[in-house]
Formats: sequence, C-alpha cells, structure tokens
Amino acid sequence: MFMTKPMEIEARSMEIISPYLSVFNLSEEEKKIYSRIIHASGDVGYAPIIKIHPEAISAIKAALLRGANIFTDVEMVRRGISIRTFTKFGGEIFCKVSDVDVREFAKREGITRSMAAMRMFGKRLDGEIVAIGNAPTALFEVLRLVREENICPAAIIGVPVGFVGAAESKAQLMAQEKIPYITVEGTKGGSSIAVAAVNAILYMLDNSRGLNEK
Amino acid sequence: MFMTKPMEIEARSMEIISPYLSVFNLSEEEKKIYSRIIHASGDVGYAPIIKIHPEAISAIKAALLRGANIFTDVEMVRRGISIRTFTKFGGEIFCKVSDVDVREFAKREGITRSMAAMRMFGKRLDGEIVAIGNAPTALFEVLRLVREENICPAAIIGVPVGFVGAAESKAQLMAQEKIPYITVEGTKGGSSIAVAAVNAILYMLDNSRGLNEK
Repeated sequence: MFMTKPMEIEARSMEIISPYLSVFNLSEEEKKIYSRIIHASGDVGYAPIIKIHPEAISAIKAALLRGANIFTDVEMVRRGISIRTFTKFGGEIFCKVSDVDVREFAKREGITRSMAAMRMFGKRLDGEIVAIGNAPTALFEVLRLVREENICPAAIIGVPVGFVGAAESKAQLMAQEKIPYITVEGTKGGSSIAVAAVNAILYMLDNSRGLNEK
Repeated sequence: MFMTKPMEIEARSMEIISPYLSVFNLSEEEKKIYSRIIHASGDVGYAPIIKIHPEAISAIKAALLRGANIFTDVEMVRRGISIRTFTKFGGEIFCKVSDVDVREFAKREGITRSMAAMRMFGKRLDGEIVAIGNAPTALFEVLRLVREENICPAAIIGVPVGFVGAAESKAQLMAQEKIPYITVEGTKGGSSIAVAAVNAILYMLDNSRGLNEK
C-alpha cells in the first residue's frame, strides 16, 4: 500500500531528502528551499548547484510582507505559485508573455516574447520580485534593465533552463552584486524550480498553511 | 552577445541535445519527445530513463486528431500545454484539483486532492488522454481505475515526481499492458516533463506552428 495522506507524504519526502543536504552547511531556511527544489524535481543533483545570495531570503520575505508583486516570464510559474498563500500578503502575479502587444513587439524586434515582456515591464519591476523559470533571454533582459536603466527589483529568482544561454544568464546573475538572487548553476532549472523556491519562502511566512501535496 | 531569435534558439538547442540521443536507437518521433523533455529540464540525464510504449505516440496522435480531451492532475500541466495548438483539434483540458467538491472529498477520505480528482473523473477518462505531472497518488488511482473499474484511457503520460511513491507508481504503469504510456523511470519527472511530452506530440501534428521559445 502507498501513502495517501498529504502531510505524511510531504514529511516523508523531506526526511528522505535531508541526508543529501547535510554536507552543505545550510541555515534552516536555506534547507527548506533546497528541500522543496529537490522535492519538486525528484533530483538530488540540485543540491550542489543551488546558489542563494546571503540576503535573498530576507529580501524576498520583506518584499512579500509589504505586499510586493511577482513578475514571471511564463504562465506555468504564475500557476504554480501557491495563490492561497500568496494572496494573503496582498501582492499580485503578473505575466505578459501571451499579451498581444508583447507578441507584436517581440515579432517587430526579432526577440523572444518573454524578453519583450520584461522590457515592457521596465520600471514596474522596481522593488518587486522577479521569478524567471523558463527563458534565458528574459533573465538577460532583466539584468540589462538593472545595469543600464537602473531598475532595481527586490530580488530575482532566476532559474531559466536549457542549453542555449541558460547557464550564461545565470552566471551573469551571480556575477552582479546589486540584486539578491536565488539561482541554479548550469543548464538545469525550469518553471517547477522557480515555483518551488517561491513557495518555500511563502510557506516560511505562513506556518498555518494547510495541506500541501496536490 | 546571446541569441534572441526564438527559432534559432530552439534549433540550436536541439542540435546540442542530438548527440546525447544517438546511442538510443530512436525513431524520429521518439527523438522529438526525448529532445523536448531534455530541452525542458536542461538535463541530459533524462535520456536513459524515458520510456515510451511502442503504441503510445500513435495512440496519442489518433486521440488528439479525433478531438480527445486531456485530464491532468495539476494546473501547471494545464497551463503549460500549448493551447493554441491543442484547441485546433477540438479537445479541452480538465483539471479538478482546486475544485471545492474535490477538496472536500479528499479531506473526508484522507487522500490527496489529485487522487480524489482522478477518482471523480472516473468514467470520463475512457478514450481520453491522461497527463500526470506531479502526484504519484493520482497515477496510482488512474491505474486502479483501469484495473478494477475497467476504465480505459487512450494513453497515459505519467511522470509524477519525488521520493514517495513516484518511482513505484511509474513502475506499475510500465508493468501494465492495457494502456499505452509515456513515462520516466525513478524519482525524476514533474509538470514540465508532462508538458514537454504532450507538446512534442502536438507539434508533430502541427508543423505549421509558429514561434516556440517563450
């Protein structure tokens, strides 16, 4: 027989993941983020490649508590964030990738839609949380906005995925010193990883949350 | 400078992935599914663990072409499927995990919400496509419906993720012989993987599709 009770499943999962994290000297909060990413990917290979800026967790918590919005590159990230928990803090989640004006702008410029979407957000990213789960071009664009247009998000959760630009965009994220970040080295990443990081922090702020495994 | 043109990014990504697949003796169509899963995860470690039943691709194509619906366990899968392509064939995507009646049923029975959702779909799964990206309990339940209640989906894309039941649920999927499947051995999987498999097949049917990288 298999486990069917959500709380038991999650507790057991975290118990199985825990030994893989013991060598990394993590804070309790970092451990929660690592565990949730590994839980969401089924891949303990994430443990050595997750990189959390020392101020990232506190910056994201503070932003959430004052009702900051989250700006994402793809709808899957928007859908995966625990909306029941997030809305308690008053923020909204924005994703423009499917908007007609973004589509037209991207076609005109010969760039990806998620890159166009980030450029169109522009100043709106100031003080907010950016969560990029798919497109390296979106992360490159946010980093350009930070560098060239002095735009200053509260934090960037940047885990774009793949073999064309993903590793480079995340290396650039780790090389800058202005914005706290959560990322993953190399080609791995994706919407589920971005969602896991966001939800881990939401759940830290909301211990009263209910059932968790879908 | 980095690539910003969607078609170039995707072509280059597939070119990078291709050598990793050469040892697996795949059909052109299988190769498309493998490539898209690896593209979506940034993880070539998927190549040896993807398992495609010999009739799965033709069964899913046939089902889509006659307008079959897709039943998913989580909203992230619903959101990730290329809706522009899918709706051309006339089907709908259903996910009940957030419905009030499912939540109540799950609480009453002490089971996960996605397991409750599959049980409530029941007979509606006959002849349709099931896509499970998150919850092992949902896949266990669909396999029980097949075994005990003679329910017969056209195919199951079953890639639940994690350390509690995921590997076992997928082993059970591969052990049954009634329903063609696409799956992944072990703990890895997730919504992005389910979405990648569905979209790979949608794109086979729709060569006229437009830009792809978001």
